[in-house]
Amino acid sequence: MSKQNTTPVPVTVVGLGQMGTALADAFLAAGHPTTVWNRTAKKADPLVARGAVRATSVAEAVAGTELVLVCVLDYPAVRELLAPAAESLRGKVLVNLTTGSPEQARAEAEWAAEHGIGYLDGGIMTTPPGIGDSASMILYSGAPELLAAHRPALAVLGDPIDLGADAGLASLYDAGLLGLMWSVFGGWLHASALVGADGVTAARFTEVSNRWLKTVSWFMSGYAEQIDAGEYPGDDATIDVQVVAIGHLLQAGEARGVDGRLPRLHLDLMRSAVEAGHGGDSYARIIDAFRK
Amino acid sequence: MSKQNTTPVPVTVVGLGQMGTALADAFLAAGHPTTVWNRTAKKADPLVARGAVRATSVAEAVAGTELVLVCVLDYPAVRELLAPAAESLRGKVLVNLTTGSPEQARAEAEWAAEHGIGYLDGGIMTTPPGIGDSASMILYSGAPELLAAHRPALAVLGDPIDLGADAGLASLYDAGLLGLMWSVFGGWLHASALVGADGVTAARFTEVSNRWLKTVSWFMSGYAEQIDAGEYPGDDATIDVQVVAIGHLLQAGEARGVDGRLPRLHLDLMRSAVEAGHGGDSYARIIDAFRK
Repeated sequence: MSKQNTTPVPVTVVGLGQMGTALADAFLAAGHPTTVWNRTAKKADPLVARGAVRATSVAEAVAGTELVLVCVLDYPAVRELLAPAAESLRGKVLVNLTTGSPEQARAEAEWAAEHGIGYLDGGIMTTPPGIGDSASMILYSGAPELLAAHRPALAVLGDPIDLGADAGLASLYDAGLLGLMWSVFGGWLHASALVGADGVTAARFTEVSNRWLKTVSWFMSGYAEQIDAGEYPGDDATIDVQVVAIGHLLQAGEARGVDGRLPRLHLDLMRSAVEAGHGGDSYARIIDAFRK
Repeated sequence: MSKQNTTPVPVTVVGLGQMGTALADAFLAAGHPTTVWNRTAKKADPLVARGAVRATSVAEAVAGTELVLVCVLDYPAVRELLAPAAESLRGKVLVNLTTGSPEQARAEAEWAAEHGIGYLDGGIMTTPPGIGDSASMILYSGAPELLAAHRPALAVLGDPIDLGADAGLASLYDAGLLGLMWSVFGGWLHASALVGADGVTAARFTEVSNRWLKTVSWFMSGYAEQIDAGEYPGDDATIDVQVVAIGHLLQAGEARGVDGRLPRLHLDLMRSAVEAGHGGDSYARIIDAFRK
């Protein structure tokens, strides 16, 4: 925290797609001397016009900075770009914000360690317009002490979330959180189609459903403790009760010609818990069905 | 609003299951003279001990009050109980908090109208312990003017949400919101199983995922406007981009033995939009797949 009011440190951004450009712009806006590099050099023009320094090679780009961010297409592209500059990166901190698998992130962390490069793997939980907003979460894993040291600069991009020493976790959380997002979108689109069939606008429904999500969040906080304890007391609403309730949803959907694949899958998941003798447990018990 | 500090009005609660008992208790706690009736009279004993008046018939139960709440097993049970008391209910307001279909709610509203009874249909979006908490939503539809008149008393149970004149909408929203809840739970359980395989506790993950839901809510507010406008510009993240991203989730899940039915269904939904030529649109376009 003591560093937050110090002079903005020099940073380097490698890869100037939509996201890389947003990252560099956020650093420029916060007063950081910002060096940029992109395979197609011309893509740096607008950033240079806003004050960025264009480097002609990755090795040159990382020369004057401690903190190097890379955001490119995939992990093979990261390695291809950085391998020739490995010696220039020694002793610096590499923040890899490229999307990939946990296994790829762990391999990249090993490569960095072998070359004496500090490594943080990141997952950006927003779209480019959300960069620079402290409400946006940026997940980091790999080296908590490096995140702590560079937090003032990284906080410029969004709120840095420390996931700990396993470099694979930013990618794993990223995938899991996107999966949650698609599930939320799916349930919300299904419900919007359902109420829409009876004349309710999506905007009106979404006011109510967004408020409802806060209640659902509250349930999940409690259920998470049950999962960690491995005990699922059905104190509030049991799976048996939910099986009855989902019947109303399926009927209402059928009566309105709404696609029922999503609620039918939820019913299948509930039934597998009931068949295993857990109908009196809370919904959290259904994690067994996902673990196989 | 001007009524909120007036003397609590007498109320009647018919049906004393877990939920009906919670409703009666909330009224008693707020100082409302509360008359109760249940088929098995003994179930009223604890409420009587806390100050409720026990009636020996439904007709007797509704005699001294304007506002009558009923919360029983299903709509046939509502009709069976109330039909013999229809004349006693004339001119009063019946608030039916029983779970059922929109069609059943509309039929009940018609029956009430034929007998000169004011009618509100309700959907309780919480479990019994959440009754009496202003963070809990109670949905009402059927007669906005009756909700306005009785809002001070009904607000004792939870925050009253006015869904308008169509009596079926409380049930329809209720079903849709529960569907959303099961989808959120499903996506969250899938993700918890995923990160859990790499040693992350559900409690730790849920801190991050609950925060992420706020971002997802923000996306849905924007997408709702797109749905109502029937235009789906892919300004932030297109369906094509999400199809690539869900590949990482499916791979991470397979590598960890996590059941993939839920993400595979989301991929199917995305693909149907891509095949229809809408891969460049926002995720909101997928409502087409639900509307069939």
